[in-house]
Amino acid sequence: MKIDLENVLPRDIEKRSFEIITQEMNPPIPEDDKAPIIKRVIHTSADFEYANTLCFSKDVVKKTLEQLKNGACIVTDTQMGKAGINKKSLAKFGGEVYCFMSDDDVAQIAKENGTTRATASMDKAALLQKPIIFAIGNAPTALVRLYELIQEGKINPALIIGVPVGFVNVIQSKELIMSLDIPYIVARGRKGGSNVAAAICNALLYMLDEER
Amino acid sequence: MKIDLENVLPRDIEKRSFEIITQEMNPPIPEDDKAPIIKRVIHTSADFEYANTLCFSKDVVKKTLEQLKNGACIVTDTQMGKAGINKKSLAKFGGEVYCFMSDDDVAQIAKENGTTRATASMDKAALLQKPIIFAIGNAPTALVRLYELIQEGKINPALIIGVPVGFVNVIQSKELIMSLDIPYIVARGRKGGSNVAAAICNALLYMLDEER
Repeated sequence: MKIDLENVLPRDIEKRSFEIITQEMNPPIPEDDKAPIIKRVIHTSADFEYANTLCFSKDVVKKTLEQLKNGACIVTDTQMGKAGINKKSLAKFGGEVYCFMSDDDVAQIAKENGTTRATASMDKAALLQKPIIFAIGNAPTALVRLYELIQEGKINPALIIGVPVGFVNVIQSKELIMSLDIPYIVARGRKGGSNVAAAICNALLYMLDEER
Repeated sequence: MKIDLENVLPRDIEKRSFEIITQEMNPPIPEDDKAPIIKRVIHTSADFEYANTLCFSKDVVKKTLEQLKNGACIVTDTQMGKAGINKKSLAKFGGEVYCFMSDDDVAQIAKENGTTRATASMDKAALLQKPIIFAIGNAPTALVRLYELIQEGKINPALIIGVPVGFVNVIQSKELIMSLDIPYIVARGRKGGSNVAAAICNALLYMLDEER
């Protein structure tokens, strides 16, 4: 079978991908500090819809980079998200990634309270004595619980990445987060995922790598 | 802020999601053995486009379930894919999941040969003396190498899940796989991802769980 492969060196594949994304963006996006995040999400999904659906609170990138430099940690709601985040880049600044979803105490508390494990894992995260970036790529119930914890004054997140995917309360949970006066990056609508959450974290981390 | 959340019990969220997917499918798909795979991919991506782009070789589901029952293993090209596959379900039949991408020998060989680590990790996988399901959600170079290894008679995969995502050689690598007379499940076009690869594996595993 005759199929023409484009001849790109391994180390150039990502660069070439970002060039194609930039060329095909229609309309083009401003090359501001949000652009690397939007492009990396499209890179991880091949879905240009994210150029329209990603929502950013005011100055969120600048604020988050400061928090990361100060050693902010990341809490995710999936092991996949944790696996996808560049932990080496984060560790340079003293941060680490947590996912409590498989913890026995979380499973136990969720069962007792009749909630999801995602809800219980947010309660566990609320006890961490560090600046936290929440990277939620799966469970809208995690976002709903974060909304409640913020309303109750129990947490003050460095950033909420609100990109769960799906069909039950996903749209609503994202709107809840965007109703708050907090730093957020949200993919409006049903789409998102652990891969999108990890891509947003990595885009932020790579911006810091470039600064160094 | 007034946002209405749908009241769904934690254990019913997935069931309700699949109901919504089934309702919204336009046109509806036949309720055959491919339907659970298509629906689970839409569940993981909220992207109905997959109903049109997922391609299945003849009798691939039936053949793969037999292989899984006989202890077939899964090789993925990302740690994210590995994290997302239900390893407990797979272990019931004696299978396990491998990802060689972070292995030192793979990095070394890739550097020496000027290839991607994905290419080198397929060569490592070719040495496994077991029936293998390849779940490729990221690297088109992995699919290209599998194509070559099959042409050279060096591997005979139980299944290739060809769902890399991206912009450089992604479309072509998938067409290469579909040109072969082997069991495949491929997401035609640019879209896919580790999450999609894991969702396809899990859909297959859950079909077996339901049989028991």
